[in-house]
Amino acid sequence: MTGHFILSWFYHIFTIFAPYSISTVFGMQGKEIQYLQDIDWLYLRSKKENKLRQHAKVIWMCGLSGSGKSTIAFKLEDELFNRGYVAQVLDGDNLRSGLNKDLGFSVRDRTENLRRIAELSKMLISGGIISINAFISPTFKIRKEARRIIGQQDFLEVYINAPLQICEQRDKKGLYEKARMGLIKDFTGIDSPFEPPLNPDIEITTDKLDIQESVDRLLNFILPHIEYKN
Amino acid sequence: MTGHFILSWFYHIFTIFAPYSISTVFGMQGKEIQYLQDIDWLYLRSKKENKLRQHAKVIWMCGLSGSGKSTIAFKLEDELFNRGYVAQVLDGDNLRSGLNKDLGFSVRDRTENLRRIAELSKMLISGGIISINAFISPTFKIRKEARRIIGQQDFLEVYINAPLQICEQRDKKGLYEKARMGLIKDFTGIDSPFEPPLNPDIEITTDKLDIQESVDRLLNFILPHIEYKN
Repeated sequence: MTGHFILSWFYHIFTIFAPYSISTVFGMQGKEIQYLQDIDWLYLRSKKENKLRQHAKVIWMCGLSGSGKSTIAFKLEDELFNRGYVAQVLDGDNLRSGLNKDLGFSVRDRTENLRRIAELSKMLISGGIISINAFISPTFKIRKEARRIIGQQDFLEVYINAPLQICEQRDKKGLYEKARMGLIKDFTGIDSPFEPPLNPDIEITTDKLDIQESVDRLLNFILPHIEYKN
Repeated sequence: MTGHFILSWFYHIFTIFAPYSISTVFGMQGKEIQYLQDIDWLYLRSKKENKLRQHAKVIWMCGLSGSGKSTIAFKLEDELFNRGYVAQVLDGDNLRSGLNKDLGFSVRDRTENLRRIAELSKMLISGGIISINAFISPTFKIRKEARRIIGQQDFLEVYINAPLQICEQRDKKGLYEKARMGLIKDFTGIDSPFEPPLNPDIEITTDKLDIQESVDRLLNFILPHIEYKN
């Protein structure tokens, strides 16, 4: 009886995992077991994309604080939902208050912050879900690392561009004021550099377009990438 | 002209955030800015649940290695997808190879591992997505903390129960063998305790049910919780 169930389970485990190649690699140390199941996530992903009728991408929006990243991100998510797409916004506020609340703003913590965001996005797209990321992500290095983790083919770089002066005038969180007063150190644009992307997939100039125009432009760029094709 | 755009942006930002109460709280130290935007995520979530026609829950499956958690999780996800539900499996393999690959198996790292998983699940349900979690999560303390982060009303505790002897016979990853040989230390069930849930929402005895029966039983329990009601 018990034997039957064990066999049954073995059979089912085999059936489920048969399409994937599983290679289990163990480290040598007992305490820190490192194993990796080389499951074919691409197969699972394509199944989900088929069901959701969408191709999942990471829409990575970088730009200064106040350039309009989160505002555009939430409006874009809404427009996509209205068209039947399933997307999730990741931004500083939902990450810093939850998953990454153990992290500060040192260089090491910023790097770890972005690593986790990239891994999280990768997980979302492996589930067929579009990831809309709104993070200052100021340096070439940070964005390059995010692109590496996520994969070139799934990474769409969007530069939300507004001159510092405009962002500082908007200053809806009062951060620039605090940075100018020296209450916040290493603030991007003030005493920490922003390296504009040299070759973004699309650039949205939010000092020249209003919100709806910005979102429409981004949407028109995104749709061909996520429309389900096969 | 520029002034117009700034006003326009302020207006739109206000329009978007008007339904939420935003309170921005700053810490005193410049280097580690801690701010929290008290956005009404519940409002966003209900909008998404409405669009996806489902209520999002975290289905937290605990149990010994080899009890069948991941197997059931992936089959459950599939059954849910076939019924039009959007769900995402989180298990040791996709977490440990990505988001949590910086973590080992010390007590501190295990705690951090589970904290991140709970935060990640919370984020998924805030996006209206059902989270199916398959983790040994051996102690009362760990599960209690996960429940606290996720919230009582969204946390469904599922005990995937099979006797140690059966799990050890299955041993599809060869982990028990290694634990018995002393190559893996602190292995749950061998030299590290498993505290069975005292009052799980549902218990699935995988030594008595085959896979399909296990999944059906769980599915019947889950459906009333996720069916869209209003």
